[in-house]
Amino acid sequence: MLRKIFDYYLTESKCYTNLEFLTTKIESRLSGSPGATKAVAWAKKAMYEAGADTVYLQPCMVPHWVRGAKEKCFSIDPKTKQKTEYAVCALGGSVATPKVGSQANVIEVKSFDELDKLGEEKIKGKIVFYNVFFDQKNLSTGKSYGETVNYRWEGPSRAAKYGAIATIVRSMSSANNNFPHTGSMGYDSTISKIKTPCCAISFSGADKLAEQLKKNPSLIINLKMSCQKLLDEPSFNVVGEIKGSTKANEIILTGGHLDAWDNGQGAHDDGSGVVQSIEVLAMFKKMGIKPKHTIRAVAFMNEENGGAGGKAYFEDVKMKKLKHIVALESDAGGFSPRGIAVDTAMNAFKTVSSWKPLLDPYFLQYIRKGGHGADIEYLQGIGVPLIGFEPDGQKYFDYHHTADDTFDKINKRELELSAGVIGSIIYLIDTKGW
Amino acid sequence: MLRKIFDYYLTESKCYTNLEFLTTKIESRLSGSPGATKAVAWAKKAMYEAGADTVYLQPCMVPHWVRGAKEKCFSIDPKTKQKTEYAVCALGGSVATPKVGSQANVIEVKSFDELDKLGEEKIKGKIVFYNVFFDQKNLSTGKSYGETVNYRWEGPSRAAKYGAIATIVRSMSSANNNFPHTGSMGYDSTISKIKTPCCAISFSGADKLAEQLKKNPSLIINLKMSCQKLLDEPSFNVVGEIKGSTKANEIILTGGHLDAWDNGQGAHDDGSGVVQSIEVLAMFKKMGIKPKHTIRAVAFMNEENGGAGGKAYFEDVKMKKLKHIVALESDAGGFSPRGIAVDTAMNAFKTVSSWKPLLDPYFLQYIRKGGHGADIEYLQGIGVPLIGFEPDGQKYFDYHHTADDTFDKINKRELELSAGVIGSIIYLIDTKGW
Repeated sequence: MLRKIFDYYLTESKCYTNLEFLTTKIESRLSGSPGATKAVAWAKKAMYEAGADTVYLQPCMVPHWVRGAKEKCFSIDPKTKQKTEYAVCALGGSVATPKVGSQANVIEVKSFDELDKLGEEKIKGKIVFYNVFFDQKNLSTGKSYGETVNYRWEGPSRAAKYGAIATIVRSMSSANNNFPHTGSMGYDSTISKIKTPCCAISFSGADKLAEQLKKNPSLIINLKMSCQKLLDEPSFNVVGEIKGSTKANEIILTGGHLDAWDNGQGAHDDGSGVVQSIEVLAMFKKMGIKPKHTIRAVAFMNEENGGAGGKAYFEDVKMKKLKHIVALESDAGGFSPRGIAVDTAMNAFKTVSSWKPLLDPYFLQYIRKGGHGADIEYLQGIGVPLIGFEPDGQKYFDYHHTADDTFDKINKRELELSAGVIGSIIYLIDTKGW
Repeated sequence: MLRKIFDYYLTESKCYTNLEFLTTKIESRLSGSPGATKAVAWAKKAMYEAGADTVYLQPCMVPHWVRGAKEKCFSIDPKTKQKTEYAVCALGGSVATPKVGSQANVIEVKSFDELDKLGEEKIKGKIVFYNVFFDQKNLSTGKSYGETVNYRWEGPSRAAKYGAIATIVRSMSSANNNFPHTGSMGYDSTISKIKTPCCAISFSGADKLAEQLKKNPSLIINLKMSCQKLLDEPSFNVVGEIKGSTKANEIILTGGHLDAWDNGQGAHDDGSGVVQSIEVLAMFKKMGIKPKHTIRAVAFMNEENGGAGGKAYFEDVKMKKLKHIVALESDAGGFSPRGIAVDTAMNAFKTVSSWKPLLDPYFLQYIRKGGHGADIEYLQGIGVPLIGFEPDGQKYFDYHHTADDTFDKINKRELELSAGVIGSIIYLIDTKGW
């Protein structure tokens, strides 16, 4: 049966063409944007076309942050007046700079410890430059991301606490190129009441800035950003389902998130997860398999900057006392299959692990404990077993949150093979249960 | 120790910058070309820089085939006179067309069986179009390649036997795009004494031609190619070695091939294998590990259209009665690690298999029996265990033998991780023996 499923995925599935449409025919789809609205309508249509019995739009209020004009950042050598430009992008949630830019000397730090040691005396009135490296030694690029992402999230408030006027963060990037990586930050009023502008600088830009600062510590940076937070907007998760034949009140969820950062096409993050989820519905319908359980594909809204969709889904589940027997999320790119992470009590883990030999020929190298997507995390609180799909991750943080996360970076066979692994797992859970 | 090896590969190794130089600073390096001569000189230098004690140039005579001016192929509708162009490239070894082109009606066939059934009556004076599909259902793209490659190799002579004046072969391509895939063909005088021009047509070109033929079977094709076979040229394998400390007369070989098709940069095929092999020498030297056995990195010449390098290496081994305890080849692209194929007596296979848990964290999913690179194949005849390195292969036949096999398709971490697996295997064999 799995062989038939993979034949379907490698020859008939629509996930590649669906992804092409979502990423290239609809404009960028950050929460609250016109693109996000169109993406919701598209996902609804795509789920019906895949064969869903019903498609719900599940409301949630989402933040609406806009980047504004393209950010500008340059350094000036106060002696020679030489100007050097840098590729930067505002962090999601950042306030704007003044129209003339935030202009000040720069202080480079390698850690929060170093920041704390420098303190107000050295930092006040300056721009803090967190130049913290993405560790290339980790085999899991996600680990390197996890080790550095707090400089993006909390760095601005921590710098503001000591009087910094703006923050520049080295991109959490595995690739040495000139694409800056955006991503969410949060102003933490328990650290500082002052909201200062903050941006990410590209890998090569960070190296260049560090080199300039070594030569000339009195270098001045000017950063111009016009981003702003508008009023929250109503938006939706898109939930498509095929009713179960014998256990309709037990739900198997497979999801990804529909929103994506505004600078790229969100092809790997997370258009891939969305089309793979929709394809699970199509697999059941087009292969003529009647699922026992209700199969739900969910395109979550607002994973990137708020998580409103995941919360709304959870609230609905609690209110309606819905029973989920498993929730799977694919939010790590559209690459070749590699593994799955199962976050649940021992029994279900053992059951899933026993399927490893079945999936081994389809490039599922490992089944491990732990890990899952952010949108389904809330369901853990009510005891739902969670699965995170983990494709080969070496390139994910080359593209993640950049203008380079585009459809041409997706390989059709890789996307389909991973979709096939997801489809197979859902099929196995439906057929064999936990 | 393996962890240290991977730290080295992910932070200090030069395989990525070496590959950049080989593929972007040296022109195309098909056997007999000026680029191949430069590549030999570069490989010698790179091996010394990696820390080889000695670097030999091992002579071999190679064929010298040149493509000439860019090939042209168009169809003409005899009624409407409408012209349609197609992306084609001469197959390596093909003769040229007349200057005005080979022009005739086209006959599409899907198999040699179909060709034989049509016979001379239907084929004489026409251009045969082998439109045989690359099977997307196979999990191993190499298998799909293997199933179709004989239409490229033997197709021209088989068509000539029935009087065809030229042959067009559908590219052995996993990707639906407009790049034609070249590759070797062979005129077989036992099938036909007549050498006719032959080319590959791109995936989308083949679809377009088939569609046109369906509408209008009397379509005429004009194919212009000016390729020619010049006199054989002297060339070289490049052999770099680090002498073993206790078993200097036992050789561990790790290799790839230096020549590449002239239409692209040969980044995946097989610049990757060459730089990964050279990096094994660097690993021992820079990590200060003294190997027990003699470690040889070999950059073979002429794998693509003759195999003269592999043969010359083998003749030298026989003449000098050299003892090889293993030969590994990496010739399947510079992608993430996936597996190795071991072709040897049971004992050594068991030994290698016992290392699987050590290499599992570094993304080596499987160790299987069988398979190896073409350059080391001759060594099997004298009982040398062979290993073929098998990275994730989903994209390999997107790029294989095309203008699209360029350095920008290489991901640094993926190349390094696979190089690290190769280095680790060589280290384990040297340390633990068979």
